Amino acid sequence: MPDSLVETPTFVCPAPVANRGRIVLGHGSGGRLSAELLRDVFLPLFSNPVLDRLDDQAILAIGGARIAFTTDSFVVKPLFFPGGDIGSLAVHGTVNDLAMGGARPLFLSAGFILEEGLSTDVLREIAASMARAAAAAGVTIVTGDTKVVEKGKGDGLFINTTGIGIVPDAVRLTASSARPGDRVILSGTIGDHGIAILAKREGLEFDSEIVSDSAALHELVTVMLEAAQVTPSAIRCLRDPTRGGVSSSLNEIAGQSRVSIQIEESKIPVQDGVRGACELLGLDPLYVANEGKLLAIVSPEAADKVVEAMRRHPLGTMAAVIGTVGDQGAGVVTMRTVFGSTRLVDLLAGDQLPRIC
Amino acid sequence: MPDSLVETPTFVCPAPVANRGRIVLGHGSGGRLSAELLRDVFLPLFSNPVLDRLDDQAILAIGGARIAFTTDSFVVKPLFFPGGDIGSLAVHGTVNDLAMGGARPLFLSAGFILEEGLSTDVLREIAASMARAAAAAGVTIVTGDTKVVEKGKGDGLFINTTGIGIVPDAVRLTASSARPGDRVILSGTIGDHGIAILAKREGLEFDSEIVSDSAALHELVTVMLEAAQVTPSAIRCLRDPTRGGVSSSLNEIAGQSRVSIQIEESKIPVQDGVRGACELLGLDPLYVANEGKLLAIVSPEAADKVVEAMRRHPLGTMAAVIGTVGDQGAGVVTMRTVFGSTRLVDLLAGDQLPRIC
Repeated sequence: MPDSLVETPTFVCPAPVANRGRIVLGHGSGGRLSAELLRDVFLPLFSNPVLDRLDDQAILAIGGARIAFTTDSFVVKPLFFPGGDIGSLAVHGTVNDLAMGGARPLFLSAGFILEEGLSTDVLREIAASMARAAAAAGVTIVTGDTKVVEKGKGDGLFINTTGIGIVPDAVRLTASSARPGDRVILSGTIGDHGIAILAKREGLEFDSEIVSDSAALHELVTVMLEAAQVTPSAIRCLRDPTRGGVSSSLNEIAGQSRVSIQIEESKIPVQDGVRGACELLGLDPLYVANEGKLLAIVSPEAADKVVEAMRRHPLGTMAAVIGTVGDQGAGVVTMRTVFGSTRLVDLLAGDQLPRIC
Repeated sequence: MPDSLVETPTFVCPAPVANRGRIVLGHGSGGRLSAELLRDVFLPLFSNPVLDRLDDQAILAIGGARIAFTTDSFVVKPLFFPGGDIGSLAVHGTVNDLAMGGARPLFLSAGFILEEGLSTDVLREIAASMARAAAAAGVTIVTGDTKVVEKGKGDGLFINTTGIGIVPDAVRLTASSARPGDRVILSGTIGDHGIAILAKREGLEFDSEIVSDSAALHELVTVMLEAAQVTPSAIRCLRDPTRGGVSSSLNEIAGQSRVSIQIEESKIPVQDGVRGACELLGLDPLYVANEGKLLAIVSPEAADKVVEAMRRHPLGTMAAVIGTVGDQGAGVVTMRTVFGSTRLVDLLAGDQLPRIC
């Protein structure tokens, strides 16, 4: 993959041109423009200690319980793709944001924004998929809302899911807790979801169909927490590298923990089909979205034990240590390439693949 | 107002024509088509004891606490209107859905779907309005999400807010608990929000500007619960008559409680400007949305005390008993008109005013 994509970020496509004072697609990328929007617009207005943690979920103390609370809107296009649809994705995405806080997911809300003219059968099929995904994940959809906008003012349907989970007392996961010496664990191949969406959307055909990895990760997290339980704080934090991919998640962790992170390209598994598609399209798998993978920052003592446990779970068979936390500059993420050189892994500047979740 | 609007529902506008198998604007009206969508698509798939209660909020037992949980997406057009904007509305709407369950609102999530090209200044102004409304209501926005869709695939911005509140032990409010003999209390004038939106959207001018009643009602609810606390179950249920107006809320209560409800037209306050606009436009105020009003079903013994307490609160100065619960047929809502006749108050068949919230 060409290094220039990362190091001269103005070449990513669609480029964030002429965005002064206007929202561009890159503001939804999970990359640099998303971070700027958060920093310049939302955080100064909404600032409070819970939100300012910038984790994927809020952890709230309510009536003696520790409640995890997270929201996500889904605008993926197309609505159906190999490995899932907007309904299953809307369940997995929010379940995973709860799981990344170490929470047991319990309840979801579902808010639908429908475009006039949407087929009722399509809506029913998507709702059925949500129901199946929720049942499989052990969460209950307990409240909902439906709005309709005129034809041409939406795009089929958008779904918001907001989730509630309960966090065990001993669990304290936050992106600000990585320490030099910690290991970076990745649960499996990267880029599958983003490339599956892109291939379907653009009608691209490859030798073997690329299937989204969309899946609920909370049981894998349970396995990891159990494996590390002799030292409760051994797992420092978890992130699911969705929008913006592995690069965004690692940059966020490195920034919030004021550490550096170095990863090894040779340790990061990429399916052949995904790698080929990325080369063809000039995309970097590190920036492509996943919907069924996680990154963990784990103490050096516990890392091997956690990886072993993950490999025994169907969603973690390819789990591996892919890097190390260091003290070579706060927020700096680098990768040792397969050629032996080291390159900077920066935040995505524009948006490689809009509307992948 | 012409009775025909209600009794021959095919004349409402935009009419729900040719909707077989397709979503029409009326599916978002809060009226009959919304109820059908819920009954035919969502409930069979998502059915569970909490959702099946069909209240405005789920009440969940988590870790010893009773948690209220509710979601709403906001697609109001235009984004700014007399008395508020989509940001303040998104806070008030969800705070009110929590309050209608007797909950003290605590936390909100905020999910934004932005259309490419939206002015960042507009977004900032709306976010600032949300922040002010949240601070005034004593709720904290603790988690959020932003997605961006291509120009022409959204409409400026849509906001989902999902709320968490805590319900006191003694409070049990549900739309299935109205009993014959109970009184129907309304907190003030009706139709202000819907007509304010319509006037702004269509550029209509009236002698005096019609201002939305958008407001957070949880403190008014606290006052009501305190006034009724000698008999804890005296307040049977609360509803804020938003989409579909007073008619929808009363039909839902009458249906779920298997009772009839009769209201008195002469007791229902309508501002002169709203009445005039409705007559001009052929709208029925009973079907027009409110965003700062509530309906309460209260035991006959407690009704006067509750009304007195409400009148001392700024948002309830015009509170009055407007009707009575009866046993003249499950789900039947009727109104004695100012002319002495009685007419059926049915669910809205189409959608008088799309996108008012």
